[in-house]
Amino acid sequence: MKGHYDEKGDAVPSQDEFALIRDWNDGRQSEEFLDSAGIVLGIGDDAAVVSGASDREWLFAVDTMVEDVHFRDDTMGEADVGYKALAANVSDIAAMGGVPRQALVSISAPPSWNGERMKRLYDGLYECAERYGIAIIGGDTTSAPRQLVVSVTIIGTVEVGRAIRRNGAKPGQSVFVTGPTGLSAAGLHGLLKQRDRSKETSVEEAIPQRLVLSHRRPAPSVRAGRILLETGWGSSLNDVSDGLASEAWEIAEASQARLVLRERALPVSGDLASYAGAQGVRLLDWMLYGGEDYVLIGTVDRIHELALKERFRAEGLPLFIIGEVESGTPEVVLETASGTRKPLRKGGYNHFPKG
Amino acid sequence: MKGHYDEKGDAVPSQDEFALIRDWNDGRQSEEFLDSAGIVLGIGDDAAVVSGASDREWLFAVDTMVEDVHFRDDTMGEADVGYKALAANVSDIAAMGGVPRQALVSISAPPSWNGERMKRLYDGLYECAERYGIAIIGGDTTSAPRQLVVSVTIIGTVEVGRAIRRNGAKPGQSVFVTGPTGLSAAGLHGLLKQRDRSKETSVEEAIPQRLVLSHRRPAPSVRAGRILLETGWGSSLNDVSDGLASEAWEIAEASQARLVLRERALPVSGDLASYAGAQGVRLLDWMLYGGEDYVLIGTVDRIHELALKERFRAEGLPLFIIGEVESGTPEVVLETASGTRKPLRKGGYNHFPKG
Repeated sequence: MKGHYDEKGDAVPSQDEFALIRDWNDGRQSEEFLDSAGIVLGIGDDAAVVSGASDREWLFAVDTMVEDVHFRDDTMGEADVGYKALAANVSDIAAMGGVPRQALVSISAPPSWNGERMKRLYDGLYECAERYGIAIIGGDTTSAPRQLVVSVTIIGTVEVGRAIRRNGAKPGQSVFVTGPTGLSAAGLHGLLKQRDRSKETSVEEAIPQRLVLSHRRPAPSVRAGRILLETGWGSSLNDVSDGLASEAWEIAEASQARLVLRERALPVSGDLASYAGAQGVRLLDWMLYGGEDYVLIGTVDRIHELALKERFRAEGLPLFIIGEVESGTPEVVLETASGTRKPLRKGGYNHFPKG
Repeated sequence: MKGHYDEKGDAVPSQDEFALIRDWNDGRQSEEFLDSAGIVLGIGDDAAVVSGASDREWLFAVDTMVEDVHFRDDTMGEADVGYKALAANVSDIAAMGGVPRQALVSISAPPSWNGERMKRLYDGLYECAERYGIAIIGGDTTSAPRQLVVSVTIIGTVEVGRAIRRNGAKPGQSVFVTGPTGLSAAGLHGLLKQRDRSKETSVEEAIPQRLVLSHRRPAPSVRAGRILLETGWGSSLNDVSDGLASEAWEIAEASQARLVLRERALPVSGDLASYAGAQGVRLLDWMLYGGEDYVLIGTVDRIHELALKERFRAEGLPLFIIGEVESGTPEVVLETASGTRKPLRKGGYNHFPKG
């Protein structure tokens, strides 16, 4: 679909849009790879064609990043935007225990995103695709009057009947997380502060590189999700896109159970702790409410806890038991070091005022 | 993914976004329908889960509508926007000869699109979904600073190895179209003129209702595509989203052949002809370059031409033979009534100036 309205001067008629899209996409992924990924027909026709299989179910999710809402061009490079847009979607497949396979990308770009910037965005996108073995099978590119919007649909597969949902947490089970949280939020904090200060100081040297990378190049936990599915031990699962408390709430509500998180058991990143200390920010706020870390939170029967930890360790992956599931009203509470319990708010944002 | 930036006041924290999205989606499609559509798990977890099958291939396409680029709120109602966003995608599946099955919808909405307007948009979307039997299995809703962006990913199925591509046109074959073109463009023309005139005259009474409907509620040609696949007689196929000339060009280039369209054979809508006459607009320009009609253009062996027409007629569907495929440099030419040949330009828009 093309633009009918060029009154605003952002739709340039009579150039070959398809040539540009080809330019950004062509030759990025080898025929061999696309064949092995079951792609019968890739980008270039009305629709992509992908082989079916009866021993797998399909997973589908869509996630969108909007300029000035989810990212800003003074804290994220173009390639970071492309990388992260895909990574956030890969994380949704990881959170079902699935394998990410293909993706379709729709980009609406304002005039400020010229061909060079778009190319760098695709560089980052394909870098993430290569990292996770994902075939890019569709690309719609349109103009937008002002902000860039990147919408990615991810396609994954999972063994029949095995996808790990949010609603499987049961009283008596343990709550785990596959890595420390709060790093991405702290990275954004640092990048925003840097932007407001002197431009002479380089962003990267002022805040721990790990925090910046967590924000710009998040690493979805695909392998962790697969272990949880392959062992059959993950009883519920969510990725931490909106913050640990918010994701725990989703599991609590879907499972109709209470999640108790123990403050002392939450994994703390050393980089995060020292940065929070230097900045005078409360570490726990970032850990509980900072989003976009893309680690996994879930539940496991106590009887499998040690074996699961061992499986993770054997693959060089961390796993932290951070709490328990209790019967009762669905909610999430934090048990502090002194043993007192505090309810945690859901967090998250609502983008829509009631009409 | 939620917004981190509420500086502009468009991301309202601490309300329950999910409740609103549920409000727009819940109960719209029955459990029976979703079961019959192979939906193992619908909206509400990290990803939807859909059953696989080994006797079908999957079709995937994405298409995006941007406010003030692809539509304007003074020519399209909210429900029209939702309906058309899905219909345009359904048309991509029709253009492969496939059956549309599921869709994921990503909407980025500015504050001007409040909850009531969003609900009407979803009304139209679900109306189209019901019309074509499509399960809505994913919905991402985010805020946007200014323009509404609706991105739909459509999922379809097709018999293994049978999808009808653009590259199958062969010299000697006939070119067909499944209906008249130019109606949507003329409808938009009328709506824009009406908008600029006195607000007292109702839009609908001033221009033929069929043209307005063609623009606001396009009808993708799913059944026509299925006949072309089931008979095995459609050798190449495209939907007319960017205009007849542009789509013919795509077939010509993909098939490395010349398409000759006969001016006198092009189907003319009576409503369009009378409106064009009254407006002093050249009818042929709309028919060749007006987009978003969502009829199908394709090619068929001459030997099957009559039988194909009969199949269409038996199902109450039109089919018009409008030209021939010739060997030679890929291009599209129009043979006028007097027998002279004029090359047709590709048409279409490029949204990106080179960076």
